[in-house]
Amino acid sequence: MQGLFITFEGGEGSGKTTVLPLVAEHFINLGFDVLITREPGGTPIAEEIREIILDRKNTAMDPHTEALLYAAARAQHIQEKIKPALAAGKLVLCDRFVDSSIVYQAQARNLDVEAVWQFNQFAIDNTMPDITLFFDIEPELGFARINKDNSREVNRLDLETLEFHEQVYKNYLNLADKDSDRIQIVDARLDIQNVTQQCIDFINEKTKLLGKER
Amino acid sequence: MQGLFITFEGGEGSGKTTVLPLVAEHFINLGFDVLITREPGGTPIAEEIREIILDRKNTAMDPHTEALLYAAARAQHIQEKIKPALAAGKLVLCDRFVDSSIVYQAQARNLDVEAVWQFNQFAIDNTMPDITLFFDIEPELGFARINKDNSREVNRLDLETLEFHEQVYKNYLNLADKDSDRIQIVDARLDIQNVTQQCIDFINEKTKLLGKER
Repeated sequence: MQGLFITFEGGEGSGKTTVLPLVAEHFINLGFDVLITREPGGTPIAEEIREIILDRKNTAMDPHTEALLYAAARAQHIQEKIKPALAAGKLVLCDRFVDSSIVYQAQARNLDVEAVWQFNQFAIDNTMPDITLFFDIEPELGFARINKDNSREVNRLDLETLEFHEQVYKNYLNLADKDSDRIQIVDARLDIQNVTQQCIDFINEKTKLLGKER
Repeated sequence: MQGLFITFEGGEGSGKTTVLPLVAEHFINLGFDVLITREPGGTPIAEEIREIILDRKNTAMDPHTEALLYAAARAQHIQEKIKPALAAGKLVLCDRFVDSSIVYQAQARNLDVEAVWQFNQFAIDNTMPDITLFFDIEPELGFARINKDNSREVNRLDLETLEFHEQVYKNYLNLADKDSDRIQIVDARLDIQNVTQQCIDFINEKTKLLGKER
């Protein structure tokens, strides 16, 4: 039986990375075989590609090169980890996927969005998520949450202007509007337990539709 | 004045790599500022990408990943070397370019050719060659030429079957047929001097059309 592929998307402070393991725990307790992953997915080739992208001496990197490198790493992640897990019937939970490339890399760097979408489709070789859970929270609220949480490291994207993150948020809402069959909107303003339950409910609904309930 | 971008394409033993510097010499003697290049183009980022592609331990590399990595290296080559050279009015002579990705990687590995073409267009950011010189010679004749030349190292592609190279040859002829404005067919069966002169004539014709004659 083919598994189920769920991706988690959202802005900074949306809580997706906190909630993902709680969703995993719920399904593991029910006897599901769960793979938790995130890009570049821990495959050796994808890690080598990531090193090039993140290498601080590569300041001359063109945005086209960067977008193609992310897609190359994604292709390897899909072929080496996600496809085999789905073929083995696993529930795959992935923190960020193609939508992140669209809203962060393509739209924010003024690349041709349709072109970036198309070569990401090539990269994933017809393996689109069954469901994408978009953690919907306004950037100001997300940032307020981050600032209360001193244990969390501030990364480069946190340092971009609020305006940038508002654009990312709008981009996500547009994607969700255009692909409403796949992208489910999770109200991420609520508390962790509530948000976790919303995710579980969306996944349960999909497994029922697909006849995968156990 | 914008420069002129010429790419050299053809199968093994077609003579393009021998003829390219002779063509360059002709135009240098006429006072042209000439850039000779080949992929990955010698930029540090593109070289790092090439190392991943050629690393023998990366046997798990998926063909999708490989095609995207070549495109990423090409994007960097275009932005760092070819575009600045064209902007400076140079005559750029490049050994292999997008057409090689189509006939070798996409068609030979059964990837989606249209998709590979599209993300290569993204990679080159509207910088298509003004002329592509296709060195037309049947694979049997090309191989016979290689085998007479003991000084030349045999590379991996030489070892593929003749059938593979016949497919590559057909793919090139199809591309030349579909894009006859750009791709000029050089009769590569003739001797080096004759082939060099054919290339020079095609470039002269184009420089006249573009009003670039000096």
